[in-house]
Amino acid sequence: MLDKSKIPNLKVIAFDADDTLFINETYFDETEKKFCGLMEDYLSHQGISKELFKIEIDNLKLYGYGIKGYILSMIEAAMNISNNTIPVEVIEKIIRYGKELLEKPIVLLDGVEETLESLYGRYKLIVATKGDLLDQRRKLHNSGLGHYFHHIEVMSDKQEVDYLDLIKRLEIKPEEFFMIGNSLKSDVLPVLAIGGHAVHIPFHTTWAHEKIDHKVEHKNFKALNTITEVLPLLEL
Amino acid sequence: MLDKSKIPNLKVIAFDADDTLFINETYFDETEKKFCGLMEDYLSHQGISKELFKIEIDNLKLYGYGIKGYILSMIEAAMNISNNTIPVEVIEKIIRYGKELLEKPIVLLDGVEETLESLYGRYKLIVATKGDLLDQRRKLHNSGLGHYFHHIEVMSDKQEVDYLDLIKRLEIKPEEFFMIGNSLKSDVLPVLAIGGHAVHIPFHTTWAHEKIDHKVEHKNFKALNTITEVLPLLEL
Repeated sequence: MLDKSKIPNLKVIAFDADDTLFINETYFDETEKKFCGLMEDYLSHQGISKELFKIEIDNLKLYGYGIKGYILSMIEAAMNISNNTIPVEVIEKIIRYGKELLEKPIVLLDGVEETLESLYGRYKLIVATKGDLLDQRRKLHNSGLGHYFHHIEVMSDKQEVDYLDLIKRLEIKPEEFFMIGNSLKSDVLPVLAIGGHAVHIPFHTTWAHEKIDHKVEHKNFKALNTITEVLPLLEL
Repeated sequence: MLDKSKIPNLKVIAFDADDTLFINETYFDETEKKFCGLMEDYLSHQGISKELFKIEIDNLKLYGYGIKGYILSMIEAAMNISNNTIPVEVIEKIIRYGKELLEKPIVLLDGVEETLESLYGRYKLIVATKGDLLDQRRKLHNSGLGHYFHHIEVMSDKQEVDYLDLIKRLEIKPEEFFMIGNSLKSDVLPVLAIGGHAVHIPFHTTWAHEKIDHKVEHKNFKALNTITEVLPLLEL
Protein backbone atom coordinates (compact mmCIF):
# COMPACT_ATOMS: atom_id res chain seq x y z
CA MET A 1 0.00 0.00 0.00
CA LEU A 2 1.43 3.27 -1.14
CA ASP A 3 2.31 5.82 1.55
CA LYS A 4 4.83 8.61 2.04
CA SER A 5 7.45 6.30 3.55
CA LYS A 6 7.47 4.39 0.25
CA ILE A 7 8.26 7.31 -2.02
CA PRO A 8 11.12 9.16 -0.36
CA ASN A 9 12.84 10.37 -3.55
CA LEU A 10 9.86 11.46 -5.54
CA LYS A 11 10.73 14.09 -8.15
CA VAL A 12 7.91 14.38 -10.66
CA ILE A 13 4.17 14.14 -10.13
CA ALA A 14 2.25 13.69 -13.37
CA PHE A 15 -1.47 14.34 -13.67
CA ASP A 16 -3.64 12.90 -16.37
CA ALA A 17 -5.85 15.69 -17.76
CA ASP A 18 -9.16 14.43 -19.14
CA ASP A 19 -11.51 13.32 -16.35
CA THR A 20 -8.72 13.75 -13.78
CA LEU A 21 -8.30 17.55 -13.83
CA PHE A 22 -11.46 18.45 -15.76
CA ILE A 23 -14.47 16.72 -17.31
CA ASN A 24 -14.13 15.21 -20.77
CA GLU A 25 -15.88 11.88 -21.30
CA THR A 26 -19.21 13.52 -20.45
CA TYR A 27 -18.78 15.73 -23.54
CA PHE A 28 -17.92 12.78 -25.78
CA ASP A 29 -21.03 10.96 -24.46
CA GLU A 30 -23.20 13.99 -25.29
CA THR A 31 -21.73 14.19 -28.81
CA GLU A 32 -22.22 10.48 -29.36
CA LYS A 33 -25.87 10.79 -28.31
CA LYS A 34 -26.35 13.55 -30.91
CA PHE A 35 -24.58 11.43 -33.53
CA CYS A 36 -26.89 8.49 -32.75
CA GLY A 37 -29.85 10.86 -33.08
CA LEU A 38 -28.66 11.82 -36.60
CA MET A 39 -28.40 8.17 -37.65
CA GLU A 40 -31.42 6.64 -35.90
CA ASP A 41 -33.36 6.04 -39.13
CA TYR A 42 -30.72 3.46 -40.06
CA LEU A 43 -29.99 1.58 -36.83
CA SER A 44 -30.63 1.46 -33.07
CA HIS A 45 -28.57 3.79 -30.88
CA GLN A 46 -26.82 0.72 -29.49
CA GLY A 47 -26.01 -0.56 -32.98
CA ILE A 48 -24.69 2.84 -34.03
CA SER A 49 -22.47 3.14 -30.95
CA LYS A 50 -21.13 -0.33 -31.57
CA GLU A 51 -20.26 0.44 -35.20
CA LEU A 52 -18.68 3.77 -34.25
CA PHE A 53 -16.56 2.14 -31.53
CA LYS A 54 -15.37 -0.52 -33.98
CA ILE A 55 -14.30 2.14 -36.48
CA GLU A 56 -12.62 4.24 -33.78
CA ILE A 57 -10.54 1.27 -32.67
CA ASP A 58 -9.69 0.34 -36.27
CA ASN A 59 -8.53 3.92 -36.88
CA LEU A 60 -6.65 4.32 -33.60
CA LYS A 61 -3.36 3.12 -35.02
CA LEU A 62 -3.58 5.65 -37.85
CA TYR A 63 -5.32 8.59 -36.17
CA GLY A 64 -4.30 8.24 -32.52
CA TYR A 65 -6.42 9.71 -29.72
CA GLY A 66 -8.32 12.97 -29.84
CA ILE A 67 -11.28 14.75 -31.29
CA LYS A 68 -10.16 15.12 -34.93
CA GLY A 69 -9.84 11.36 -35.30
CA TYR A 70 -13.20 11.00 -33.56
CA ILE A 71 -14.85 13.32 -36.10
CA LEU A 72 -13.33 11.36 -38.99
CA SER A 73 -14.52 8.09 -37.43
CA MET A 74 -18.06 9.45 -37.02
CA ILE A 75 -18.10 10.42 -40.72
CA GLU A 76 -16.86 6.97 -41.69
CA ALA A 77 -19.43 5.30 -39.43
CA ALA A 78 -22.22 7.41 -40.97
CA MET A 79 -21.21 6.30 -44.47
CA ASN A 80 -20.93 2.64 -43.44
CA ILE A 81 -24.17 2.51 -41.48
CA SER A 82 -26.14 4.18 -44.30
CA ASN A 83 -24.42 2.24 -47.07
CA ASN A 84 -23.32 5.60 -48.49
CA THR A 85 -26.90 6.90 -48.68
CA ILE A 86 -26.36 9.48 -45.93
CA PRO A 87 -27.15 13.05 -47.11
CA VAL A 88 -24.12 15.37 -47.23
CA GLU A 89 -25.96 17.66 -44.77
CA VAL A 90 -25.54 14.97 -42.10
CA ILE A 91 -21.78 14.98 -42.63
CA GLU A 92 -21.86 18.75 -42.32
CA LYS A 93 -23.63 18.35 -38.96
CA ILE A 94 -21.08 15.78 -37.76
CA ILE A 95 -18.27 18.24 -38.49
CA ARG A 96 -20.18 20.95 -36.65
CA TYR A 97 -20.71 18.69 -33.61
CA GLY A 98 -17.00 17.89 -33.71
CA LYS A 99 -16.02 21.55 -33.77
CA GLU A 100 -18.42 22.20 -30.86
CA LEU A 101 -16.74 19.36 -28.95
CA LEU A 102 -13.37 21.05 -29.53
CA GLU A 103 -14.71 24.24 -27.96
CA LYS A 104 -16.47 22.85 -24.88
CA PRO A 105 -15.89 24.86 -21.70
CA ILE A 106 -13.43 23.51 -19.15
CA VAL A 107 -15.03 22.40 -15.90
CA LEU A 108 -12.53 21.57 -13.14
CA LEU A 109 -13.16 18.53 -10.98
CA ASP A 110 -13.56 18.90 -7.19
CA GLY A 111 -10.40 19.38 -5.18
CA VAL A 112 -8.08 19.80 -8.18
CA GLU A 113 -7.10 23.39 -7.54
CA GLU A 114 -6.48 22.91 -3.79
CA THR A 115 -4.39 19.78 -4.48
CA LEU A 116 -2.21 21.58 -7.02
CA GLU A 117 -1.90 24.58 -4.72
CA SER A 118 -0.57 22.30 -1.94
CA LEU A 119 1.90 20.47 -4.18
CA TYR A 120 3.15 23.46 -6.15
CA GLY A 121 6.77 24.33 -5.42
CA ARG A 122 7.41 21.02 -3.61
CA TYR A 123 7.58 18.72 -6.64
CA LYS A 124 7.93 19.15 -10.39
CA LEU A 125 4.30 18.92 -11.52
CA ILE A 126 3.51 17.99 -15.10
CA VAL A 127 0.46 17.03 -17.13
CA ALA A 128 0.75 13.68 -18.92
CA THR A 129 -2.11 13.14 -21.31
CA LYS A 130 -3.12 11.48 -24.55
CA GLY A 131 -5.02 13.22 -27.31
CA ASP A 132 -4.51 15.98 -29.82
CA LEU A 133 -1.59 18.19 -28.94
CA LEU A 134 -3.21 21.53 -29.72
CA ASP A 135 -6.46 20.48 -28.10
CA GLN A 136 -4.83 19.40 -24.84
CA ARG A 137 -2.70 22.56 -24.66
CA ARG A 138 -5.76 24.71 -25.26
CA LYS A 139 -7.73 22.89 -22.59
CA LEU A 140 -4.95 23.27 -20.04
CA HIS A 141 -4.62 26.94 -20.90
CA ASN A 142 -8.37 27.50 -20.60
CA SER A 143 -8.46 25.59 -17.31
CA GLY A 144 -6.44 28.34 -15.64
CA LEU A 145 -4.22 25.62 -14.14
CA GLY A 146 -1.29 26.13 -16.49
CA HIS A 147 0.89 28.02 -13.99
CA TYR A 148 0.97 25.05 -11.60
CA PHE A 149 2.71 22.86 -14.16
CA HIS A 150 6.30 22.79 -15.36
CA HIS A 151 4.96 21.67 -18.72
CA ILE A 152 2.48 19.41 -20.48
CA GLU A 153 3.50 16.09 -22.00
CA VAL A 154 1.10 15.03 -24.72
CA MET A 155 1.73 11.33 -25.28
CA SER A 156 0.81 9.41 -28.42
CA ASP A 157 -0.23 6.51 -26.19
CA LYS A 158 0.09 5.50 -22.53
CA GLN A 159 1.73 2.13 -22.74
CA GLU A 160 4.87 1.05 -20.90
CA VAL A 161 7.11 2.14 -23.76
CA ASP A 162 5.53 5.60 -23.74
CA TYR A 163 6.14 6.01 -20.01
CA LEU A 164 9.73 4.81 -20.41
CA ASP A 165 10.15 7.46 -23.08
CA LEU A 166 8.64 10.08 -20.76
CA ILE A 167 10.94 9.09 -17.88
CA LYS A 168 13.90 9.40 -20.23
CA ARG A 169 12.83 12.86 -21.35
CA LEU A 170 12.41 13.90 -17.72
CA GLU A 171 15.86 12.45 -16.96
CA ILE A 172 14.61 10.73 -13.79
CA LYS A 173 14.30 7.14 -12.57
CA PRO A 174 10.96 5.33 -12.65
CA GLU A 175 10.78 5.25 -8.84
CA GLU A 176 10.98 9.06 -8.83
CA PHE A 177 7.79 9.26 -10.89
CA PHE A 178 4.23 9.38 -9.55
CA MET A 179 1.16 9.28 -11.80
CA ILE A 180 -2.37 10.38 -10.89
CA GLY A 181 -5.22 9.47 -13.20
CA ASN A 182 -8.69 8.09 -13.78
CA SER A 183 -7.75 5.19 -16.04
CA LEU A 184 -6.37 2.00 -14.50
CA LYS A 185 -5.40 0.82 -17.97
CA SER A 186 -3.57 3.98 -19.08
CA ASP A 187 -2.52 5.83 -15.94
CA VAL A 188 -1.83 3.03 -13.47
CA LEU A 189 -0.88 -0.39 -14.86
CA PRO A 190 1.92 0.69 -17.25
CA VAL A 191 3.40 3.04 -14.62
CA LEU A 192 3.50 0.26 -12.00
CA ALA A 193 4.98 -2.09 -14.58
CA ILE A 194 7.98 0.17 -15.19
CA GLY A 195 8.59 0.73 -11.46
CA GLY A 196 6.78 4.01 -10.87
CA HIS A 197 4.07 4.96 -8.38
CA ALA A 198 0.43 5.53 -9.24
CA VAL A 199 -2.97 6.29 -7.78
CA HIS A 200 -6.36 5.81 -9.37
CA ILE A 201 -9.18 8.32 -8.95
CA PRO A 202 -12.27 7.07 -10.79
CA PHE A 203 -14.49 9.33 -12.90
CA HIS A 204 -18.15 8.37 -13.08
CA THR A 205 -17.97 7.39 -16.75
CA THR A 206 -15.17 5.58 -18.60
CA TRP A 207 -14.68 5.07 -22.35
CA ALA A 208 -15.07 1.36 -23.24
CA HIS A 209 -11.50 1.28 -24.57
CA GLU A 210 -10.11 2.29 -21.15
CA LYS A 211 -11.96 -0.35 -19.13
CA ILE A 212 -10.23 -3.28 -17.44
CA ASP A 213 -11.96 -6.11 -15.60
CA HIS A 214 -9.66 -6.94 -12.72
CA LYS A 215 -8.63 -5.40 -9.42
CA VAL A 216 -5.21 -3.79 -9.04
CA GLU A 217 -3.04 -4.62 -6.03
CA HIS A 218 0.55 -3.40 -5.87
CA LYS A 219 2.90 -1.93 -3.29
CA ASN A 220 3.26 1.26 -5.35
CA PHE A 221 -0.47 1.71 -5.89
CA LYS A 222 -3.47 3.11 -4.05
CA ALA A 223 -7.11 3.52 -5.10
CA LEU A 224 -8.55 6.86 -3.99
CA ASN A 225 -11.97 8.46 -4.17
CA THR A 226 -11.00 12.10 -4.71
CA ILE A 227 -7.85 13.89 -5.76
CA THR A 228 -7.30 15.61 -2.39
CA GLU A 229 -6.61 12.17 -0.87
CA VAL A 230 -3.28 12.31 -2.70
CA LEU A 231 -1.94 14.85 -0.21
CA PRO A 232 -1.56 12.55 2.84
CA LEU A 233 0.52 10.17 0.66
CA LEU A 234 3.17 12.78 -0.07
CA GLU A 235 5.87 14.66 1.83
CA LEU A 236 4.59 18.23 2.15
CA MET B 1 27.13 35.70 -39.72
CA LEU B 2 26.87 32.57 -37.65
CA ASP B 3 30.06 30.56 -37.08
CA LYS B 4 31.50 28.30 -34.41
CA SER B 5 33.12 31.16 -32.52
CA LYS B 6 29.64 32.63 -32.00
CA ILE B 7 28.06 29.60 -30.36
CA PRO B 8 30.52 28.45 -27.73
CA ASN B 9 27.98 27.13 -25.20
CA LEU B 10 25.65 25.33 -27.50
CA LYS B 11 23.72 22.55 -25.74
CA VAL B 12 20.77 21.52 -27.86
CA ILE B 13 20.48 21.22 -31.63
CA ALA B 14 16.89 20.94 -32.81
CA PHE B 15 15.94 19.68 -36.25
CA ASP B 16 12.67 20.40 -37.95
CA ALA B 17 11.32 17.14 -39.39
CA ASP B 18 9.11 17.68 -42.46
CA ASP B 19 11.16 18.75 -45.50
CA THR B 20 14.27 19.08 -43.32
CA LEU B 21 14.90 15.43 -42.41
CA PHE B 22 12.54 13.81 -44.93
CA ILE B 23 10.17 14.83 -47.70
CA ASN B 24 6.66 15.92 -46.80
CA GLU B 25 5.27 18.85 -48.78
CA THR B 26 5.66 16.81 -51.98
CA TYR B 27 3.13 14.31 -50.61
CA PHE B 28 0.67 17.05 -49.65
CA ASP B 29 1.03 18.50 -53.16
CA GLU B 30 0.26 15.08 -54.68
CA THR B 31 -2.80 14.66 -52.47
CA GLU B 32 -4.03 18.13 -53.30
CA LYS B 33 -3.71 17.39 -57.01
CA LYS B 34 -5.87 14.27 -56.54
CA PHE B 35 -8.38 16.29 -54.53
CA CYS B 36 -8.56 18.92 -57.29
CA GLY B 37 -9.11 16.07 -59.76
CA LEU B 38 -12.11 14.87 -57.73
CA MET B 39 -13.65 18.35 -57.72
CA GLU B 40 -12.83 19.60 -61.21
CA ASP B 41 -16.43 19.46 -62.43
CA TYR B 42 -17.21 22.28 -60.00
CA LEU B 43 -14.25 24.65 -60.25
CA SER B 44 -10.77 25.16 -61.74
CA HIS B 45 -7.85 23.49 -59.93
CA GLN B 46 -6.65 26.95 -58.93
CA GLY B 47 -10.06 27.88 -57.55
CA ILE B 48 -10.26 24.60 -55.60
CA SER B 49 -6.79 25.09 -54.11
CA LYS B 50 -7.68 28.63 -53.10
CA GLU B 51 -10.89 27.53 -51.36
CA LEU B 52 -9.11 24.63 -49.62
CA PHE B 53 -6.32 26.93 -48.39
CA LYS B 54 -8.87 29.41 -47.03
CA ILE B 55 -10.64 26.65 -45.10
CA GLU B 56 -7.35 25.21 -43.82
CA ILE B 57 -6.33 28.60 -42.44
CA ASP B 58 -9.79 29.18 -40.93
CA ASN B 59 -9.56 25.78 -39.22
CA LEU B 60 -5.95 26.12 -38.08
CA LYS B 61 -6.84 27.65 -34.73
CA LEU B 62 -9.22 24.78 -33.98
CA TYR B 63 -7.47 21.83 -35.67
CA GLY B 64 -3.79 22.80 -35.55
CA TYR B 65 -1.28 21.39 -38.05
CA GLY B 66 -1.28 17.87 -39.43
CA ILE B 67 -3.01 15.45 -41.73
CA LYS B 68 -6.22 14.82 -39.79
CA GLY B 69 -7.11 18.50 -39.87
CA TYR B 70 -6.18 18.53 -43.56
CA ILE B 71 -8.60 15.67 -44.28
CA LEU B 72 -11.39 17.47 -42.42
CA SER B 73 -10.64 20.68 -44.34
CA MET B 74 -10.75 18.82 -47.68
CA ILE B 75 -14.18 17.40 -46.75
CA GLU B 76 -15.42 20.85 -45.78
CA ALA B 77 -14.02 22.36 -48.99
CA ALA B 78 -15.74 19.65 -51.07
CA MET B 79 -19.08 20.45 -49.47
CA ASN B 80 -18.63 24.22 -49.88
CA ILE B 81 -17.40 24.06 -53.48
CA SER B 82 -20.25 21.75 -54.54
CA ASN B 83 -22.89 23.56 -52.51
CA ASN B 84 -23.51 20.27 -50.69
CA THR B 85 -24.22 18.41 -53.94
CA ILE B 86 -21.05 16.32 -53.70
CA PRO B 87 -21.75 12.55 -53.73
CA VAL B 88 -20.90 10.74 -50.49
CA GLU B 89 -18.53 8.54 -52.52
CA VAL B 90 -16.29 11.57 -53.06
CA ILE B 91 -16.05 12.10 -49.30
CA GLU B 92 -15.18 8.43 -48.96
CA LYS B 93 -12.33 8.98 -51.46
CA ILE B 94 -11.08 12.05 -49.61
CA ILE B 95 -10.82 9.99 -46.41
CA ARG B 96 -8.99 7.28 -48.34
CA TYR B 97 -6.53 9.82 -49.81
CA GLY B 98 -6.00 11.17 -46.30
CA LYS B 99 -5.27 7.73 -44.89
CA GLU B 100 -2.85 7.10 -47.76
CA LEU B 101 -1.12 10.38 -46.94
CA LEU B 102 -0.72 9.19 -43.34
CA GLU B 103 1.03 6.06 -44.60
CA LYS B 104 3.44 7.53 -47.16
CA PRO B 105 6.93 6.08 -47.05
CA ILE B 106 9.67 8.11 -45.43
CA VAL B 107 12.31 9.37 -47.83
CA LEU B 108 15.36 10.91 -46.14
CA LEU B 109 16.83 14.07 -47.62
CA ASP B 110 20.45 14.14 -48.82
CA GLY B 111 23.12 14.41 -46.16
CA VAL B 112 20.77 13.98 -43.20
CA GLU B 113 22.16 10.70 -41.94
CA GLU B 114 25.81 11.76 -42.23
CA THR B 115 25.09 15.06 -40.46
CA LEU B 116 23.36 13.32 -37.56
CA GLU B 117 26.11 10.74 -37.38
CA SER B 118 28.71 13.53 -37.01
CA LEU B 119 26.77 15.43 -34.36
CA TYR B 120 25.57 12.45 -32.33
CA GLY B 121 27.17 12.27 -28.89
CA ARG B 122 28.51 15.85 -29.10
CA TYR B 123 25.27 17.74 -28.55
CA LYS B 124 21.79 16.88 -27.31
CA LEU B 125 19.92 16.40 -30.58
CA ILE B 126 16.15 16.72 -30.67
CA VAL B 127 13.43 16.92 -33.29
CA ALA B 128 11.22 20.01 -33.02
CA THR B 129 8.24 19.78 -35.32
CA LYS B 130 4.64 20.84 -35.78
CA GLY B 131 1.86 18.48 -36.75
CA ASP B 132 -0.01 15.53 -35.35
CA LEU B 133 1.77 13.94 -32.44
CA LEU B 134 1.22 10.31 -33.43
CA ASP B 135 1.96 11.03 -37.05
CA GLN B 136 5.27 12.77 -36.34
CA ARG B 137 6.38 10.03 -33.93
CA ARG B 138 5.52 7.36 -36.48
CA LYS B 139 7.42 9.18 -39.23
CA LEU B 140 10.48 9.57 -37.06
CA HIS B 141 10.30 5.91 -36.08
CA ASN B 142 9.93 4.81 -39.70
CA SER B 143 12.79 7.08 -40.77
CA GLY B 144 15.23 4.93 -38.84
CA LEU B 145 16.71 8.14 -37.39
CA GLY B 146 15.11 7.81 -33.96
CA HIS B 147 18.26 6.64 -32.17
CA TYR B 148 20.13 9.86 -33.01
CA PHE B 149 17.66 11.95 -31.03
CA HIS B 150 17.22 12.43 -27.30
CA HIS B 151 13.52 12.89 -27.97
CA ILE B 152 10.97 14.49 -30.27
CA GLU B 153 9.18 17.70 -29.38
CA VAL B 154 5.90 18.01 -31.23
CA MET B 155 4.92 21.66 -30.95
CA SER B 156 1.38 23.00 -31.36
CA ASP B 157 2.87 25.95 -33.24
CA LYS B 158 6.31 27.45 -33.87
CA GLN B 159 5.91 30.99 -32.68
CA GLU B 160 8.16 32.78 -30.19
CA VAL B 161 6.02 31.71 -27.26
CA ASP B 162 6.26 28.06 -28.35
CA TYR B 163 10.06 28.23 -28.54
CA LEU B 164 10.21 29.93 -25.13
CA ASP B 165 8.13 27.06 -23.80
CA LEU B 166 10.48 24.54 -25.44
CA ILE B 167 13.58 26.25 -23.99
CA LYS B 168 11.95 26.13 -20.56
CA ARG B 169 11.20 22.43 -20.90
CA LEU B 170 14.79 21.79 -21.98
CA GLU B 171 16.00 23.85 -19.01
CA ILE B 172 18.54 25.74 -21.15
CA LYS B 173 19.09 29.36 -22.16
CA PRO B 174 18.04 30.60 -25.62
CA GLU B 175 21.70 31.13 -26.65
CA GLU B 176 22.34 27.44 -25.99
CA PHE B 177 19.73 26.48 -28.59
CA PHE B 178 20.32 25.97 -32.31
CA MET B 179 17.50 25.29 -34.78
CA ILE B 180 17.82 23.77 -38.25
CA GLY B 181 14.86 23.91 -40.61
CA ASN B 182 13.38 24.63 -44.00
CA SER B 183 10.93 27.35 -42.95
CA LEU B 184 12.21 30.88 -42.35
CA LYS B 185 8.86 31.74 -40.80
CA SER B 186 8.66 28.79 -38.39
CA ASP B 187 12.20 27.55 -37.83
CA VAL B 188 14.28 30.72 -38.09
CA LEU B 189 12.59 34.05 -37.28
CA PRO B 190 11.02 33.12 -33.92
CA VAL B 191 14.24 31.40 -32.77
CA LEU B 192 16.34 34.46 -33.61
CA ALA B 193 13.77 36.68 -31.90
CA ILE B 194 14.15 34.87 -28.57
CA GLY B 195 17.96 34.90 -28.75
CA GLY B 196 18.69 31.48 -30.23
CA HIS B 197 20.70 30.42 -33.28
CA ALA B 198 19.22 29.18 -36.54
CA VAL B 199 20.06 28.09 -40.05
CA HIS B 200 17.77 27.81 -43.05
CA ILE B 201 17.99 24.95 -45.54
CA PRO B 202 15.39 25.45 -48.27
CA PHE B 203 13.27 22.62 -49.66
CA HIS B 204 12.18 22.96 -53.28
CA THR B 205 8.52 23.48 -52.39
CA THR B 206 7.04 25.47 -49.49
CA TRP B 207 3.44 25.57 -48.25
CA ALA B 208 1.92 29.01 -48.91
CA HIS B 209 1.33 29.49 -45.16
CA GLU B 210 5.07 29.19 -44.46
CA LYS B 211 6.24 31.74 -47.04
CA ILE B 212 7.73 35.10 -46.11
CA ASP B 213 8.71 37.81 -48.54
CA HIS B 214 11.83 39.36 -47.08
CA LYS B 215 15.47 38.44 -46.61
CA VAL B 216 16.80 37.46 -43.19
CA GLU B 217 20.01 39.02 -41.87
CA HIS B 218 21.07 38.39 -38.29
CA LYS B 219 24.29 37.67 -36.40
CA ASN B 220 22.89 34.32 -35.21
CA PHE B 221 21.68 33.21 -38.64
CA LYS B 222 23.06 31.60 -41.78
CA ALA B 223 21.37 30.49 -45.01
CA LEU B 224 22.67 27.13 -46.23
CA ASN B 225 22.05 25.00 -49.29
CA THR B 226 22.31 21.53 -47.77
CA ILE B 227 22.21 20.13 -44.26
CA THR B 228 25.86 18.96 -44.26
CA GLU B 229 26.92 22.64 -44.37
CA VAL B 230 25.85 22.79 -40.73
CA LEU B 231 28.92 20.83 -39.66
CA PRO B 232 31.59 23.53 -40.26
CA LEU B 233 29.53 25.91 -38.09
CA LEU B 234 29.76 23.68 -35.04
CA GLU B 235 32.44 22.51 -32.61
CA LEU B 236 33.07 18.87 -33.46
